[in-house]
Amino acid sequence: MQIIIPLFDRFAPLDAVGPYQVLVHLPGATVTFAAEHRGGVSDSAGTFTLQAQASFADVPHPDVIVVPGGFGEAAQRRPGPLLDWLLEADKTSTWTTSVCTGALILARAGLLAGREATSNWQALEDLERLGAKVLRERYVFDGKYVTAAGVSAGIDMALALAARIAGDDVAMAIQLGIEYDPRPPFTAGSPETAPAHLVAAARAASRFAEARA
Amino acid sequence: MQIIIPLFDRFAPLDAVGPYQVLVHLPGATVTFAAEHRGGVSDSAGTFTLQAQASFADVPHPDVIVVPGGFGEAAQRRPGPLLDWLLEADKTSTWTTSVCTGALILARAGLLAGREATSNWQALEDLERLGAKVLRERYVFDGKYVTAAGVSAGIDMALALAARIAGDDVAMAIQLGIEYDPRPPFTAGSPETAPAHLVAAARAASRFAEARA
Repeated sequence: MQIIIPLFDRFAPLDAVGPYQVLVHLPGATVTFAAEHRGGVSDSAGTFTLQAQASFADVPHPDVIVVPGGFGEAAQRRPGPLLDWLLEADKTSTWTTSVCTGALILARAGLLAGREATSNWQALEDLERLGAKVLRERYVFDGKYVTAAGVSAGIDMALALAARIAGDDVAMAIQLGIEYDPRPPFTAGSPETAPAHLVAAARAASRFAEARA
Repeated sequence: MQIIIPLFDRFAPLDAVGPYQVLVHLPGATVTFAAEHRGGVSDSAGTFTLQAQASFADVPHPDVIVVPGGFGEAAQRRPGPLLDWLLEADKTSTWTTSVCTGALILARAGLLAGREATSNWQALEDLERLGAKVLRERYVFDGKYVTAAGVSAGIDMALALAARIAGDDVAMAIQLGIEYDPRPPFTAGSPETAPAHLVAAARAASRFAEARA
């Protein structure tokens, strides 16, 4: 089973690495990072550079696709190498999935039209405008399309996907292996539970970033 | 503030990237991956290659050290570049921390002697033999030393560390930014909650890996 995680300039590391660390333990699976060209791809801070070991041309027919998000996502919603590859690869994939704003790339490719889906809490209006039926869930399955909420939600989504692919025992063994028994020191991980002034500040920062884009 | 995450052959990606994705958002901080030499460093699967942008010689006095674990950890418990660097860097660090079996490297350097600490649930006996007072917690603070449980626990630890460094509001804003509102599909993330046959299988696999090492 070939699992491809496409990378692009200014992707969010944990969006890609959370699912990687889960899916790399699936029996019989190989997880490969791919990009327009082989070589290093960096995050928005410029301090995280991950090697793409394949070009998109090398991997036209993966079984599973996991599209991450990140600040660089907006540029990927325009026609270009990632959208071209995704549209073709999706025709033969068994599962097409996303983490965080990766859902906007899937939606822009037309893959989520009329489908239930989710994304980062700050991206849900955009996702709806792009034609998806938005749910406020940690992850959403609709047919072969699976979308996760923001950044860290890719871990939860990948465990659920591992269970669909290989059964609950395999998924639970992976969860035990990565000791995923989360105990965040605060309950600030969603706009419903975070202090209101922090939610407002995050929304303002997001509008500022959009205005500059 | 300089934060260094040292890499070594066959490190576990999420051990390093969980804390990275939290700490990279700390105001005024720069997070840099370092290794014996600059260049790519790979995980045990060989499919994840992260760029070390600094050599150990480049970063002798970081403010914060985050040592990951992984299958390659056993080789790092022997005298060599990582232990040499760690011993010197720790003399001037504000925080010296680890994720998963990274605690065994700290302990082997003598930094956890008589201190409260934790590690991957399968590494706690080794950690005790190396002189630490072992606690079964998600993460443990003892003075400037902070140790986290297995793999994914680095996210929880890094949020707690961010709060100590920059205050609760900053840590909670980061948690909201990475939408860390975990909802694993199973409760199999610890040996106390996972099905007994999966815990037994994990222990057996670990003994087999040790026998081959």
